[in-house]
Amino acid sequence: MTNEEAISELNRLFPYIREYQKLAREVAHIQDIFQDNGGKLLQVLLVTALKNLDKSREGNDAVDANGNEYELKSVNIQLTKSFSTHHHLNQAIIEKYRKVDWVFAIYDDIELLEIYLLKPKMLEPYYQKWERQYNETGKALNNPKIQVKYVRQNGIKIFTHTDDFKLYQSVINEPLKPTSSN
Amino acid sequence: MTNEEAISELNRLFPYIREYQKLAREVAHIQDIFQDNGGKLLQVLLVTALKNLDKSREGNDAVDANGNEYELKSVNIQLTKSFSTHHHLNQAIIEKYRKVDWVFAIYDDIELLEIYLLKPKMLEPYYQKWERQYNETGKALNNPKIQVKYVRQNGIKIFTHTDDFKLYQSVINEPLKPTSSN
Repeated sequence: MTNEEAISELNRLFPYIREYQKLAREVAHIQDIFQDNGGKLLQVLLVTALKNLDKSREGNDAVDANGNEYELKSVNIQLTKSFSTHHHLNQAIIEKYRKVDWVFAIYDDIELLEIYLLKPKMLEPYYQKWERQYNETGKALNNPKIQVKYVRQNGIKIFTHTDDFKLYQSVINEPLKPTSSN
Repeated sequence: MTNEEAISELNRLFPYIREYQKLAREVAHIQDIFQDNGGKLLQVLLVTALKNLDKSREGNDAVDANGNEYELKSVNIQLTKSFSTHHHLNQAIIEKYRKVDWVFAIYDDIELLEIYLLKPKMLEPYYQKWERQYNETGKALNNPKIQVKYVRQNGIKIFTHTDDFKLYQSVINEPLKPTSSN
């Protein structure tokens, strides 16, 4: 493909990109799908029916219809096998984490494969390990990881992809729906 | 729009998102359009006919057909009026910056509005200011900014959007083409 041909292809596709950005802004307050996994966050929020929370506030990432807040994490298993957490993780952050359930989304490139819910007690081994490290060193931890394998083995699966990778609603805390395209 | 309707809309658009990701990977080695402005970087690289350089290496962001390297910067003027630079800017980084031309892309949300080329002498006032600050404090600068206004007033405009926002090739260091849709 020549550079000119690639530009034509981009021009053909871009109207749909605009529609995706418009959808992301209107239903999820995502300002830019091309930054901070915005285009992926839209997928997780719609599947789980969670609402996006403003990043500038002190709280967590998302909220459900009952007002419960959640931390959201995502990983692209083509690039890494663990979830990032926080670049300055200290006791206050651990306390904040302990109060909410976490939602972990696993991607193969940009395809959403699975979503898991982990309740505080399911993450407690990590919290205790991080607390020990923080207390021993007296320094904030730089982005300690949570293994994809741990999430898959210990979490509640709330979404798994269909054969054609079309998304469907799977509201948090409801049982997993059977695999189907709708 | 209900949440279910939003999911249907996402499912309608996602095949085109996949094609855009495929294009980005194949022609520009962009692994993820939804991170680090990947989807925008594709636009700038195709318009300028520059090639993406691997971020893990020591050098700059992109390279032209003659082997000249470039720093690439982008800004969304809906969010901010200045370009970010580097989170630990020291003398070595300034020296690296001085060796190459910079390409500045200005976006309105995800729409590419203009691209400017700034040669080292056009950025020298910033380099001298940063050097003074670095020498005075002895500490790396945390992301000093370059004003959009400065770039527009002092740079060489190499791309401006058409009325319908379709992109066209405007190879770096060639004169600006007249505004037209192609």
